[in-house]
Amino acid sequence: MPSPKPIALDALIARRRPGYSLEAPFYSSPEVFAADMELIFGRHWIFVGVEPDVPEPGDCYTVEIGTSPVLILRDDDMQIRAFHNVCRHRGAKLVDREKATVGNLVCRYHQWTYGLDGKLLFAEHMGQGFDRSCHGLKPVHLRSLAGLLFVCLADDPPDDFDAVAKVMTPYLAPHDLPNCRVAFQSDLIEKGNWKITMENNRECYHCAGNHPELTIPLFAYGFGFAPEEADETELVQAARYEQMVCDLGREWEAGGLPSGVVEHLDDMVTGFRTQRLPIDGSGQSQTMDTKVACRRLLGQFTDARLGGLSFWTQPNSWHHFMSDHIVTFSVIPLDADNTLLRTKWLVHKDAVEGVDYDLEKLTEVWVATNAQDGDLVALAHAGAKSPAYEPGPYSPHTEGLVDQFCNWYLSRLAAGLGR
Amino acid sequence: MPSPKPIALDALIARRRPGYSLEAPFYSSPEVFAADMELIFGRHWIFVGVEPDVPEPGDCYTVEIGTSPVLILRDDDMQIRAFHNVCRHRGAKLVDREKATVGNLVCRYHQWTYGLDGKLLFAEHMGQGFDRSCHGLKPVHLRSLAGLLFVCLADDPPDDFDAVAKVMTPYLAPHDLPNCRVAFQSDLIEKGNWKITMENNRECYHCAGNHPELTIPLFAYGFGFAPEEADETELVQAARYEQMVCDLGREWEAGGLPSGVVEHLDDMVTGFRTQRLPIDGSGQSQTMDTKVACRRLLGQFTDARLGGLSFWTQPNSWHHFMSDHIVTFSVIPLDADNTLLRTKWLVHKDAVEGVDYDLEKLTEVWVATNAQDGDLVALAHAGAKSPAYEPGPYSPHTEGLVDQFCNWYLSRLAAGLGR
Amino acid sequence: MPSPKPIALDALIARRRPGYSLEAPFYSSPEVFAADMELIFGRHWIFVGVEPDVPEPGDCYTVEIGTSPVLILRDDDMQIRAFHNVCRHRGAKLVDREKATVGNLVCRYHQWTYGLDGKLLFAEHMGQGFDRSCHGLKPVHLRSLAGLLFVCLADDPPDDFDAVAKVMTPYLAPHDLPNCRVAFQSDLIEKGNWKITMENNRECYHCAGNHPELTIPLFAYGFGFAPEEADETELVQAARYEQMVCDLGREWEAGGLPSGVVEHLDDMVTGFRTQRLPIDGSGQSQTMDTKVACRRLLGQFTDARLGGLSFWTQPNSWHHFMSDHIVTFSVIPLDADNTLLRTKWLVHKDAVEGVDYDLEKLTEVWVATNAQDGDLVALAHAGAKSPAYEPGPYSPHTEGLVDQFCNWYLSRLAAGLGR
Repeated sequence: MPSPKPIALDALIARRRPGYSLEAPFYSSPEVFAADMELIFGRHWIFVGVEPDVPEPGDCYTVEIGTSPVLILRDDDMQIRAFHNVCRHRGAKLVDREKATVGNLVCRYHQWTYGLDGKLLFAEHMGQGFDRSCHGLKPVHLRSLAGLLFVCLADDPPDDFDAVAKVMTPYLAPHDLPNCRVAFQSDLIEKGNWKITMENNRECYHCAGNHPELTIPLFAYGFGFAPEEADETELVQAARYEQMVCDLGREWEAGGLPSGVVEHLDDMVTGFRTQRLPIDGSGQSQTMDTKVACRRLLGQFTDARLGGLSFWTQPNSWHHFMSDHIVTFSVIPLDADNTLLRTKWLVHKDAVEGVDYDLEKLTEVWVATNAQDGDLVALAHAGAKSPAYEPGPYSPHTEGLVDQFCNWYLSRLAAGLGR
Repeated sequence: MPSPKPIALDALIARRRPGYSLEAPFYSSPEVFAADMELIFGRHWIFVGVEPDVPEPGDCYTVEIGTSPVLILRDDDMQIRAFHNVCRHRGAKLVDREKATVGNLVCRYHQWTYGLDGKLLFAEHMGQGFDRSCHGLKPVHLRSLAGLLFVCLADDPPDDFDAVAKVMTPYLAPHDLPNCRVAFQSDLIEKGNWKITMENNRECYHCAGNHPELTIPLFAYGFGFAPEEADETELVQAARYEQMVCDLGREWEAGGLPSGVVEHLDDMVTGFRTQRLPIDGSGQSQTMDTKVACRRLLGQFTDARLGGLSFWTQPNSWHHFMSDHIVTFSVIPLDADNTLLRTKWLVHKDAVEGVDYDLEKLTEVWVATNAQDGDLVALAHAGAKSPAYEPGPYSPHTEGLVDQFCNWYLSRLAAGLGR
Repeated sequence: MPSPKPIALDALIARRRPGYSLEAPFYSSPEVFAADMELIFGRHWIFVGVEPDVPEPGDCYTVEIGTSPVLILRDDDMQIRAFHNVCRHRGAKLVDREKATVGNLVCRYHQWTYGLDGKLLFAEHMGQGFDRSCHGLKPVHLRSLAGLLFVCLADDPPDDFDAVAKVMTPYLAPHDLPNCRVAFQSDLIEKGNWKITMENNRECYHCAGNHPELTIPLFAYGFGFAPEEADETELVQAARYEQMVCDLGREWEAGGLPSGVVEHLDDMVTGFRTQRLPIDGSGQSQTMDTKVACRRLLGQFTDARLGGLSFWTQPNSWHHFMSDHIVTFSVIPLDADNTLLRTKWLVHKDAVEGVDYDLEKLTEVWVATNAQDGDLVALAHAGAKSPAYEPGPYSPHTEGLVDQFCNWYLSRLAAGLGR
């Protein structure tokens, strides 16, 4: 009987060939997807939004991680909190819009009313034996990393978040994300498994052939190449690029901006990587003309030419911090075949649209690049479903971070399975 | 391996906490849904329509209960019959529209022809050994309760239907449903499990906050309240309402209209409840101005002020009978996450639209209320999928009938499992 | 616990009642569907297209058989080849349109480049240890039968294709399909299991009642009837039809066109049947006026009155070859409940639309007939899902080929299961 057999996840993990893409079930099996949601997205720090999503007391921002609706809000003491977005009465979703501003949290179903601290304040008709104190909202672990909001659905979140924060805060803090404003958000549903979305993010091997807008600010040599294939001219250009990384890095560091590579993509539970990279052309921003999109610079910056600070996290985010704006990307799996890519563009909170920045110019590089990536993800996902698909080799020069993503993923899956 | 484990339905049933909502798998698991369709909808009396759906000989009305297409028709002797709507040749659906009028039943595929009694009359090219008498339509059990049509897909339907009919016929018969006409039907797909649709129907705790149209004809105190939370004014109003129930009830009974509560929601296989309740304002009908929507009263009624006779059945219906019109509600599960709510508004068969009644006025309270309920069902269903959801307590004052629905459901599920 | 039990496919096959339709799981179970895709569509010769789909070097035509994307192309030596349409790097779909013309095959993702022979010619950045010769496209078995293209996804295809070709080539070759052009293609998604689509094709019992356009060119007696039900007039007509088959057949054979019945629908792995049948009216073509739709005849034909040569194959095709045009039908299962019917109308490659033929006239009979069949397939599929459905008897006079389809299907399934 050829009916689908239960996936032997252990065996699949064990037989992975290093340096090769994953076997097909990792991309298409609903069983592996269920494992991903439980063991990866249910137990790690998941990037979901930014402090400017809830700028004022009473502001709410909701997200869904798999079947878990999560409510993030700012309380009256300006503290940001997260709760399961589920009424303790009969389970109704408490806030059912993406953003809302409230005094208290009132369930629409039977008006059970919670404070911004999650305490149940009021519930009509529940009788005299009813104990309100046992029916507060269930909290969700939340951490802000220089304004980037991460939640963890597990009771015991990975304990290395502080270590990440210690390294990353000096990199990120000067860009002053908490004093930014979300100028634009796009939600793109990619027709592919979330790991294909992540893998696609972890290499720029595909950039030259697919991202005309993105390759304007990026240097061709910034994401690896095969030296033995390069001709004399290319080698000279590559050396000049390396020199630029070195020189600019020294300059930025001298100005108080940490810029060197830190890479813990597969040797930490909360895996991450960062580096500040030169931008081509005028060197200012990831825009079509490489100049700042917003004339009001972030934080205390006076120099626009700060390159692009990239920050990649496992399992689900990447970010680009520039002198004038920040772009954050959150990857949320919907099912084995569909993934939400949520992108936010942030500018200084005092920047005025039409005066300080043009929204089209601010967003056009990544709107175009996301659309192209979504198309490539769909292409890769469709082919990887074929019984003829077998894992192929990653380029040792350009796909090292993809391999690290896979390594991290498989080791965390194994850990979740208790291996 | 965290793949979905088979649901241990016995254990789920056994550990239910009385007075609390059900555990999550009851609302979202496809396995429980399959059990619901087999053991609940496959073995109980299911409300599907009304005699006026098939007023004349040859009139057909079709419904789908899960994967079972059912054909209801009126034969030439005015008897209403039900059959599986499946040709005995190659299984084609016999009548594929919701309503049709036929002489004989002719399968569109190969013209096999059945009489209105289900007998196969004609089948071309079947050869000399073919025995038509073995290939008649398969009957489905059907009962009319004062014009309300119930079918049972099981070979041996619950045997307490007569007992229900004996109690209910005196309540329902004066409204003379068989001599009504379906003035309007709405089909609403609610994005929630059918049990959430039913639970939502079994309480009015949510009415004040959600149903502005419905709370015009309904009395606030008609569906329970917590006396200890009521202030002096409210207690006086509640007492006045109780008096009204008492006085009007006596009046209605004297006029030959049974009106008192009968409640067998969880102590009969064919669970039900009924009560005739005062209507607020002018006391006539569930309309925006509480006056009759149709000036041609039902049956032999001369008095419009007969309140609202409600009739609730397990597992899938409720009904409101007034002096001028009747509203019936049938709940048909589509899958674990989607439910069809079919509502029919009936007036006297001789009432003329635009003359005796205005369709908008007739339907506006329940069209609005259904839409609001559909929204609440979706809200409750979305939250109950969260791993953070846990059964919450029902209000002892306002959610007793919800609890009784759950009790009935679980005991019938257990019975179906042979426990 | 009534959750779906694993299908005991062996038992289902064993208890099939000869001469009766299949049991319900064969039409609706996802498990049986998975078996169908693996054992039937994964191991037999599947009709997918025609030589004129790739007339010139570099022309590509893509199809999906279940989860297998397949790429068919014509190489520079005019040879037609088939490959799995999956890049050997990270599995991206190589050609993602239905038709394309290329020099080499360049993967859009990272520009891996393959020759038309499938060899990997170029892959950037892969390092010095990378062996291109191990990363060519995976071939798929392909055979052309007088221009009809069949592929087999298995490593060892059924070895009787040559035997089929030997019989069929003399029938088909005079129509010179390789020198035709696809004048029109329609893709119709039928809401039914692929076997219901096939069964519907294998009888004309339903034609008289459902296909007004098709019954113009077809003779009523061409597909069987019950002699004991026929009256004197009908028997005379039937005898005249038989005489016509005999006389015309002799005439066609004399002119070098094999015409007699050859039937191996259930006694060969690559089951097929053929016969050249008279066309009613003027006897020329399957059109509304039975005259040729294209005045440029196929091949070397000078006589338009060649009837209709039908060619049926197991598991997924049928074809009608006439003097002026050819219609081919390919059935591709999408899931247990949905099936793609792809129809191509072919005329001589030099025929000019609007001059030699009118597209409407060419296609109207089968466009209408396909739509009617799609409706009947949906009707049969919907009813066969009912628990009340049980296999019904096939007409011994008109549904013999349906029975043979079922016999072939079950024996091939059993063979695939190793029984």
